Amino acid sequence: MPGLTIVGAGLIGCSFAAAAREAGIFDHFEAVEPDPGTADRALALGLIDALVEQPSPDYPVLLACPSDQVVPWLLQLNDHEAPVFDVASVKGAILRKLAATGTPGPAGFVACHPIAGRETSGPDAADVQLFRNRPAIITPGAATDPDSLARVRGWWQAVGAQVDTMDPDLHDEIYARTSHLPHLLAFAFLLGIEPHQLPHSGGGFRDFSRIGASDPQMWSAIFDLNRTAVLSALDEFRQHLDELAAAIEAGDRAACRRLISAARARRADLAD
Amino acid sequence: MPGLTIVGAGLIGCSFAAAAREAGIFDHFEAVEPDPGTADRALALGLIDALVEQPSPDYPVLLACPSDQVVPWLLQLNDHEAPVFDVASVKGAILRKLAATGTPGPAGFVACHPIAGRETSGPDAADVQLFRNRPAIITPGAATDPDSLARVRGWWQAVGAQVDTMDPDLHDEIYARTSHLPHLLAFAFLLGIEPHQLPHSGGGFRDFSRIGASDPQMWSAIFDLNRTAVLSALDEFRQHLDELAAAIEAGDRAACRRLISAARARRADLAD
Repeated sequence: MPGLTIVGAGLIGCSFAAAAREAGIFDHFEAVEPDPGTADRALALGLIDALVEQPSPDYPVLLACPSDQVVPWLLQLNDHEAPVFDVASVKGAILRKLAATGTPGPAGFVACHPIAGRETSGPDAADVQLFRNRPAIITPGAATDPDSLARVRGWWQAVGAQVDTMDPDLHDEIYARTSHLPHLLAFAFLLGIEPHQLPHSGGGFRDFSRIGASDPQMWSAIFDLNRTAVLSALDEFRQHLDELAAAIEAGDRAACRRLISAARARRADLAD
Repeated sequence: MPGLTIVGAGLIGCSFAAAAREAGIFDHFEAVEPDPGTADRALALGLIDALVEQPSPDYPVLLACPSDQVVPWLLQLNDHEAPVFDVASVKGAILRKLAATGTPGPAGFVACHPIAGRETSGPDAADVQLFRNRPAIITPGAATDPDSLARVRGWWQAVGAQVDTMDPDLHDEIYARTSHLPHLLAFAFLLGIEPHQLPHSGGGFRDFSRIGASDPQMWSAIFDLNRTAVLSALDEFRQHLDELAAAIEAGDRAACRRLISAARARRADLAD
């Protein structure tokens, strides 16, 4: 049983360490973490065993850093032989960025995206159950090493995730709509809220805007990497918003009701 | 101890009946409910005691009907002597609509808005705790009868609500931003979601879009009544959205991060 190097000892990295330790799939957890405060907390909480400057050459590496740092790490780990896997919310855009460098990256790289974020961050938010019964998307390509793929898939399953594979560009398009766009809307919405209005926020506001408390560095990186798909999802959203606004402006209550009914139906298959 | 007539035996009407019964502030609950299915469920669940065509002349009346039916009911109850109070999410617009009719409405009318909705509806969703520790906004005017105001205030307190008074137009402006706008955005967002994308919706999506499952009739009425304030809140939202989109489009990650940080700070004072 080898050790694991975690690059980024934040919510996802520390939650993976806790779950992998519980599952007994690695026996030593080391972390590369540039922020001293974060590193200290992860050590103090016993989520990682040691801090390192560089991943140990024979350890698998989990890249749990912000999305925009995945490609630089892949370049740096070009000769790494053990599996390397990431957790970034953007997949196709990262793979294309890597391809554009002309460097292949580590032979054992497996692109992953566990659907298990939350609006809190850091080691203190770590949760051993974070991945349990949540999807873990893997976006393999022609160059993906089958043995590394099988091992990484097994690790996600060991921490309780349900592994799904999909095309990396389709991934980016779908998550632009179902995850990146709602974050963008929640941020824009919150920019219009004044402190004196907060006491007048009901439960709807609370749920709706929860994702607006998410990490600015992480989300500016995601929007930047997945720019094309995010702006395209936004264009479509604006059309629907214009349609609703036009019905309201015209006092056309029947049209407004039809649009709301259609919207409501889109969510009907989603259990709360 | 008198009885109470509830106009509209939906979520709010039935929850008030259940809570008022538990608090012992009325001894008989009758309902005007045009939908036979809703009326039957409210009776079967023991939430109301009787169905009536018209409110009993000496009973206080709770108007728990859709917002657009409040003014017609106020006109019909013009000579009603007991207190009449509503629960509509729009206040100033309703009072102005009433004033425009030239008919004063019932002498004991007290305009109210309990901040206690949810995305479910009907008698089966009724909850005796719905108003507990939630705000109940009252928007009195110069013409509001002090005795009726005191009685209605006491009833809200008896069901556990925290009563707050405010100016009706300020109410509409604030709730356009904190409640009506997020509903509008959630509806527009859901219109862009395809069924095959739903399995890829994480927890953020679930929370963000929960209010998008709200009742179409109720919300088309609210948007219509509070049109001016809703469209003005929407205009401001669009400016913030444009600002964020411009930063993403320009690849200006620092500007994007600043905007997200500002958005996040707007919510920092709100406990989850």
